[in-house]
Amino acid sequence: MIKIKGVKFAGIYCGIKKNEKKDLALALFDKPAISTGVFTKNRVKAPSVVITKKRINNPIKALIVVSGNACVCVKGDYEDAKSITNSLANYLNIEEKSIVHSATGVIGVKLPVEKVKNGIPELLKNLKDDYEDFAEAITTTDAFKKVEELTISINDGRINILGIAKGAGMIAPDLATMLVYIFTDAKIDKTTLDKALKEAVECSFNSISVDGDTSTNDMVLLFSTGMAKNKEITLKEGYNAFLGALKNVCISLAKKIIKDGEGATKLIEIIVKNAKSQRDAKKIAKTVANSPLVKTAFFGCDPNWGRIMAAIGRAGIPINKEKIDIDIQGKPVVRKGLEANNFNEATLKKELADEEIKLEIDLHSGNASTKFYTSDLTLDYVKLNSSYRT
Amino acid sequence: MIKIKGVKFAGIYCGIKKNEKKDLALALFDKPAISTGVFTKNRVKAPSVVITKKRINNPIKALIVVSGNACVCVKGDYEDAKSITNSLANYLNIEEKSIVHSATGVIGVKLPVEKVKNGIPELLKNLKDDYEDFAEAITTTDAFKKVEELTISINDGRINILGIAKGAGMIAPDLATMLVYIFTDAKIDKTTLDKALKEAVECSFNSISVDGDTSTNDMVLLFSTGMAKNKEITLKEGYNAFLGALKNVCISLAKKIIKDGEGATKLIEIIVKNAKSQRDAKKIAKTVANSPLVKTAFFGCDPNWGRIMAAIGRAGIPINKEKIDIDIQGKPVVRKGLEANNFNEATLKKELADEEIKLEIDLHSGNASTKFYTSDLTLDYVKLNSSYRT
Repeated sequence: MIKIKGVKFAGIYCGIKKNEKKDLALALFDKPAISTGVFTKNRVKAPSVVITKKRINNPIKALIVVSGNACVCVKGDYEDAKSITNSLANYLNIEEKSIVHSATGVIGVKLPVEKVKNGIPELLKNLKDDYEDFAEAITTTDAFKKVEELTISINDGRINILGIAKGAGMIAPDLATMLVYIFTDAKIDKTTLDKALKEAVECSFNSISVDGDTSTNDMVLLFSTGMAKNKEITLKEGYNAFLGALKNVCISLAKKIIKDGEGATKLIEIIVKNAKSQRDAKKIAKTVANSPLVKTAFFGCDPNWGRIMAAIGRAGIPINKEKIDIDIQGKPVVRKGLEANNFNEATLKKELADEEIKLEIDLHSGNASTKFYTSDLTLDYVKLNSSYRT
Repeated sequence: MIKIKGVKFAGIYCGIKKNEKKDLALALFDKPAISTGVFTKNRVKAPSVVITKKRINNPIKALIVVSGNACVCVKGDYEDAKSITNSLANYLNIEEKSIVHSATGVIGVKLPVEKVKNGIPELLKNLKDDYEDFAEAITTTDAFKKVEELTISINDGRINILGIAKGAGMIAPDLATMLVYIFTDAKIDKTTLDKALKEAVECSFNSISVDGDTSTNDMVLLFSTGMAKNKEITLKEGYNAFLGALKNVCISLAKKIIKDGEGATKLIEIIVKNAKSQRDAKKIAKTVANSPLVKTAFFGCDPNWGRIMAAIGRAGIPINKEKIDIDIQGKPVVRKGLEANNFNEATLKKELADEEIKLEIDLHSGNASTKFYTSDLTLDYVKLNSSYRT
C-alpha cells in the first residue's frame, strides 16, 4: 500500500446504511492541498456538487463523504449538506470554505443529518495513513473496492498517485453513482493540476458508459499535498509524464467502474479509428456504447455486426459506409461495409464468451481515434433496476 | 373495412420467410397516386430507402414490399433491390420510376432476389380491395397486424384514410423495423400532402421510442388516389381538417407500434408541459423516454421519481429544478422539485401495474408542450435481443 504524504483517511459507520456498513468517510490534509475537480453536467445537481464546485479551487483541508443517501431533491437538502461541512469546520477549527463534500445514495429521501454530525468526532479519532476504511465507506452497492496506486519519477523526484472510486452501481444508490478521489504528493502548480485532470478525465471517466444515464452527484476530485521531493511540475516541465501517470490511474479506475456496472458480465472496449475528428470518433463510440441492441447482442455472445453498423449510422456523423471495417476480438468481421470473407460466426461466438471484448471500428476517413468503455446489457441489469426498491 | 378507391392490395409467400409466412406485398394504383414520404435519418441506408427517396415525389403506380430480409450491407444489395422494381415494371409495362419499394428483416444476409421476382406473377393475380394479406405480408415478428381506418368529411366530400404499419420489433428483423403506408382517396395537391405528412409524422412516428436505436430501412409513405368527391384540399382550404385526421391515424399506429415493442408490457405516454420551446419539450421527453433507469422502474411498477428528475436534468436543456411538477397516473408525485406531500408509494405501485401509464412533467417555464410515447424495458427485451439469432 502506498502512502500519500500529508493526507490521512478515515471511514466509519454513522447510522445511514443498513447492516452497519461504513457510510461516512474523511480525508484530512496536514496542510491545505492544491485541488481541482470536474463535476456532473446534470442540471439537477446535488447540494454536495454545488458546494464542492464553489470551493474546490481553494486550497483544501478536508473532504467528507456521506454514502447511502445522495441528499438531493428533498426539502432542506442544501442546508443539511452545508451543516455537515460547517460542523466539521467547527470541530477542526478551520474555515468552512476549505472543506469539500460528496454524497451518494438514494435520492429524494431526507438525510439523517444529525447522525452524520454526531459521527464526526469518531471519524476524527480514526484517522490513519491506511485508506482501506475510506475506500469501503464511500461505496454503496459496489461489489468490490476500487483503488489504483502508482509511483513514478518525475522532475527528479518519486511521486505517488492514489485513486479511490465508487462505482456506477446506479442501483441502490439510484443515480448517485460515480465518485472519484485522487490524491498525489507531487509538487505541482494549480494551473497544471487543473489541465491534467481535465485531460485525464476526458479519456477515462468521460469515455465510459453503463447505460447513458448521468447522475446528479458525480464528481472527480484531485488533491495534491506537494510533499514529494520533486521539482515542481509545470506545463513546461514534467507535465506529460504527470499526465501519463494520471491517465493511467484514471483509466484503470474507469475500467473497474464498468466491470462493476450493474448486472454487467463483460467489459467492452470500443476503439473508433481514423475518424475526421476526435469529436466524431467519440460521438460514434458513444452511440455504439449506449445502443441497447449492441449491448444485448454482446450479452448473448452474438457477433451481430448489423447492429453495430446501424448504431454507427445513426450517430449523426457523416460516414462512408463503403469504407468501414469492423474487427471483434482482432478478427475481421466487416470489410468495406460488407461481411468480411473469412467471418466465422461460430468461432467468434466462442470468443465473445470472454469477459473482455475488443471492438474496433475503422472509418478510414481521417486521423482521429478514441477509446470508449461500456458493459453489456443483461437480464440482471433489468432485474436489479426494476425491483431494487421493492 | 374501408375501401380506398383506386388502390388494390396483395400479399403472398414467395420463399423468404420460414414457415411459409407471407413475405411479399403489393399496392397497385389504378392511376398514378400523388405521393410523399419521410425516411430514416440513419447514415447507413438500405437500397430500398435510397430508391424510394429518389422516386417518391413522382406520381406512383405501385409499392412493392419484401419482408424477412432488409437487403442491406450485402454485396450487390442495390442491384438486387433495383432488379425487383425493374422486374415489376416489366410485368406491368410501366416506367420503373413510378414504383417504390421497401424491405424489412435481417440485415447483412443476401436476399434470394430470384424468389421475389418469380413471385411477382402470383402477386399480381391476387390483387383485391381487401388489404388484410398486404398488412400480414409486411410484418416480421409483429405480434399483431397494425391497421387504422378513418372516414371524415372535408371540403364537401367524404374521404377515407387507411394506415398500415409494421412495428418496431427490431428483433428477428434486427434493425429493419418501422414501415408505414398510408393511403387516402382524398383529392389533395402535392404541396399540401408533403406538409401534412411532415407535421403528422413529427407528433407520431417521430415521438415514439422503444430503445433509441434507429433502423436502416424505416420509411413512412403517403399516397393519395384523388378519387374521393371532395373539393381539392389545399393549404388554404381543408388543410387543418385533413391534418387532424392524418395525425389521428398516425398517432394510433404509433401507439400500436410501441405496444408491440419487443418485450414491452406497458405503453408510457410522456407529456412535457410549459417548456420554453417545442424543441426543449421534445428533447426532455425523449431523454426520459430513452432512459434505461426510468424504463426499468416502470417495468418494476416503481414510482421512482428520482430517476425521472435525473433524466430531465441531463437532457441538456436549462431547467429550474425548483419549478418542476411531476404527475404519474394523474397523481401528484413531485411538486416544486420535491416529493409531493400526498405522494403515496404503495397506491401508485398498484396503479403502475396498468398497461397504459401517463407521466406528466410540468416545467412551469414557458408555453410549449409535447407528447411522446415509449415502452418499458423488460427482461423479455434482453432475452429477445440477446438470443434471437442463436
